[in-house]
Amino acid sequence: MAETVDILVAGGTVLTVNDKDSKLEGGAIAVDKDTIVALGRKEDILSAYRGRVTIDVPGSIIMPGLVNAHTHAAMTCFRGIADDMELMEWLNDYIFPAEARNADPELAYWGSMLACAEMIKSGTTTFSDMYIFEEEAAKAAKQAGMRCLLGEVLFDFPSPSFKTPAEGLACTEKLIRKWAGDPLINIMVEPHSLYTCSPELLIASKALADRYHIPLATHFLENKAEAKQLREKFGKRATAFLQEIGLLDERFIAFHCVAMDEEDIGLFADRGCKVVHNPESNMKLASGVASISAMMKRGIVVGLGTDGCASNNNLDMFQEMDTAAKLEKSARLDPTVMPARTVIRMATCDGARALGLDSLIGTLEVGKKADLCIVDMNKPHLTPMYDEYSHLVYAVNGSDVDTVLINGRVVMQNRKLLTIDEGEAMRRVREIADRVRLSLSI
Amino acid sequence: MAETVDILVAGGTVLTVNDKDSKLEGGAIAVDKDTIVALGRKEDILSAYRGRVTIDVPGSIIMPGLVNAHTHAAMTCFRGIADDMELMEWLNDYIFPAEARNADPELAYWGSMLACAEMIKSGTTTFSDMYIFEEEAAKAAKQAGMRCLLGEVLFDFPSPSFKTPAEGLACTEKLIRKWAGDPLINIMVEPHSLYTCSPELLIASKALADRYHIPLATHFLENKAEAKQLREKFGKRATAFLQEIGLLDERFIAFHCVAMDEEDIGLFADRGCKVVHNPESNMKLASGVASISAMMKRGIVVGLGTDGCASNNNLDMFQEMDTAAKLEKSARLDPTVMPARTVIRMATCDGARALGLDSLIGTLEVGKKADLCIVDMNKPHLTPMYDEYSHLVYAVNGSDVDTVLINGRVVMQNRKLLTIDEGEAMRRVREIADRVRLSLSI
Repeated sequence: MAETVDILVAGGTVLTVNDKDSKLEGGAIAVDKDTIVALGRKEDILSAYRGRVTIDVPGSIIMPGLVNAHTHAAMTCFRGIADDMELMEWLNDYIFPAEARNADPELAYWGSMLACAEMIKSGTTTFSDMYIFEEEAAKAAKQAGMRCLLGEVLFDFPSPSFKTPAEGLACTEKLIRKWAGDPLINIMVEPHSLYTCSPELLIASKALADRYHIPLATHFLENKAEAKQLREKFGKRATAFLQEIGLLDERFIAFHCVAMDEEDIGLFADRGCKVVHNPESNMKLASGVASISAMMKRGIVVGLGTDGCASNNNLDMFQEMDTAAKLEKSARLDPTVMPARTVIRMATCDGARALGLDSLIGTLEVGKKADLCIVDMNKPHLTPMYDEYSHLVYAVNGSDVDTVLINGRVVMQNRKLLTIDEGEAMRRVREIADRVRLSLSI
Repeated sequence: MAETVDILVAGGTVLTVNDKDSKLEGGAIAVDKDTIVALGRKEDILSAYRGRVTIDVPGSIIMPGLVNAHTHAAMTCFRGIADDMELMEWLNDYIFPAEARNADPELAYWGSMLACAEMIKSGTTTFSDMYIFEEEAAKAAKQAGMRCLLGEVLFDFPSPSFKTPAEGLACTEKLIRKWAGDPLINIMVEPHSLYTCSPELLIASKALADRYHIPLATHFLENKAEAKQLREKFGKRATAFLQEIGLLDERFIAFHCVAMDEEDIGLFADRGCKVVHNPESNMKLASGVASISAMMKRGIVVGLGTDGCASNNNLDMFQEMDTAAKLEKSARLDPTVMPARTVIRMATCDGARALGLDSLIGTLEVGKKADLCIVDMNKPHLTPMYDEYSHLVYAVNGSDVDTVLINGRVVMQNRKLLTIDEGEAMRRVREIADRVRLSLSI
């Protein structure tokens, strides 16, 4: 007799992205509650299981949901507010004043909700987030049914949500305690960067992260100017300083890492630190090109992230994969580096490893949480198909995603969001944008 | 009394991309036959004109149709057949054998038709094409209602469609005569490159182009290896050689131009030569980064193209614009270069100038042909909107295009193609792909 499960997913080629990169043509997946309970040939699965719900998108690709390993979700509210300018002009004349005058719990909630809508619609099921009023991002993600790892951004100076670093740390600890054991929401400690956080704040952040055995993440060496500034500040290379104060370990996640040289890479590799690559943002801000191939060669786990909407300007991980592959080839003058399969791992299982969530997600395997996306390949720009990996990286865009499951729940079907009222999210963010415009007189 | 015209287009912000970059919020356009007859505020246009058909997409952007200034349309048939490998392995082990064994009029027709479907669906209204059996591309474009400038690719060696260079030239001249005066199909002379064409063939090509006052286009200095090889072959830089044999003038269009240095750029600028930039293909093949800012600073007209689907792997000009902006910033370490407005001009009016079609298309102005696309901005990933140009370059992808007019004809409405049976085009190309797979044993 067939066993009854909650959901059967069928209709296409299953890319497991497991250790062997196994591919099942005409595959199917049985999901019960939040978990993948079986995976195999469609006929086998359909004879062994009966689904309360069956999702069948013919000719599709079924793959692990994408992991956006670094973003600032609520910054959807500032999408396209300022482009094509020097970093410091961008930050000081637009982003910082816009945030100082407008960032509040409402902006954080609705900006994050709109980001969740956009992310689900482009196949992302997990995101790693750093921003102000991060409790609101957690609430939005919970409502949207998205998995996340997030933390309140910490600075030496006051943020719109706290006055002192101690208050920022207390806010983080409150998040940790509140969301402990939640199936979707995970918390980390996120000092903003080494140029906005004192050694004391970094050390206290690490102590907090260690107390709860959670990751600590920060922006790191985003460009050469930062590397130079930190070397002058510390009298040594930034990585050496971080090692000295005890930050470099397997739960250290560094965003950007554009200006890391061979010695930095060696230190990261030795200590098991994680890196998140943000190619589109790095290009748009003219930060330089991170040495991703070299990092991977040394065994560093590298995830992929879009960064926030003020420097990208979308959250489409399929386009980010395309750029990650092409940028590395272009920068190394070698078309063989960063092949499609590697980039897909970066956006799925390696992203999950970078965030410390790989026991739960990142691949389609029995026992893993059912986080997956179904990409509709029956389109002119995806025809013909010789190789699934190639299409996903070089031809698909986020709008080709048809259906998304997170933690065993269908959050989008046939491009209709089931957990978010996208009309309301857009309306709310447009209202927020009206006040942002007024506050900046633009 | 209101004057009756064929089509009124309304419902959004009109970006004219004219010399002043005029923008009309709440604008409308009156189209009669193939031509834009009026353009202004919606209320003014709607009181002055009555449309037999009215197209109204609220909250959209109405902009000139995009000009894909260099592609190989029929190569959709080889989309994703081989990636992530050295150029010569890619060419010699995959592309050339695939073409030698499979390229025929059927492949050329259906591959081009599928390309037209993809291009219209992503907002392209004009394409410049180089391939084998180009009569078939012309037929497909005519059926699709697309504007194009195309030419049979010429080599010293036999192609699947001709045995000798003389036959290739004769084939080109036949195309010129057959399509003379056609409102959509324009012909040019296209020797493949300086490394596959003898000086004699180049000179004969130029004579043919001059006889009919049409452009001559070729792949040029796609990477440093080519520049070095040509310098050895000619005993001088390739641009100097081209000038010597009389090719460099305002009707000379050069694709890629990655390895052009300051002296080459100066020569191109002095002679009024045109350049087509192919950033995604150049990145994917690790060819290097063309000096586009420097070319523009010297006044060279630069268009934008996707190149063929075997090296991109899609024909999405919105994604190409995004990459063009970001790559230039990244390569120059300057976020101010290649701002959004410049990139949009590259993909519209400058593309039209590069192809010599700027008297007809490239901007939305009274008297120009009605080639336009309407982009639906009412989507999470395009919310909120502070700046239309920013969104079009950094946030939109081709799937956001809602409706397309070419030469006054609606070729897509609400994403439904009206001139192409996209199901048939996909089915035909899948059949061709089956025989390609067999021929290469993949």
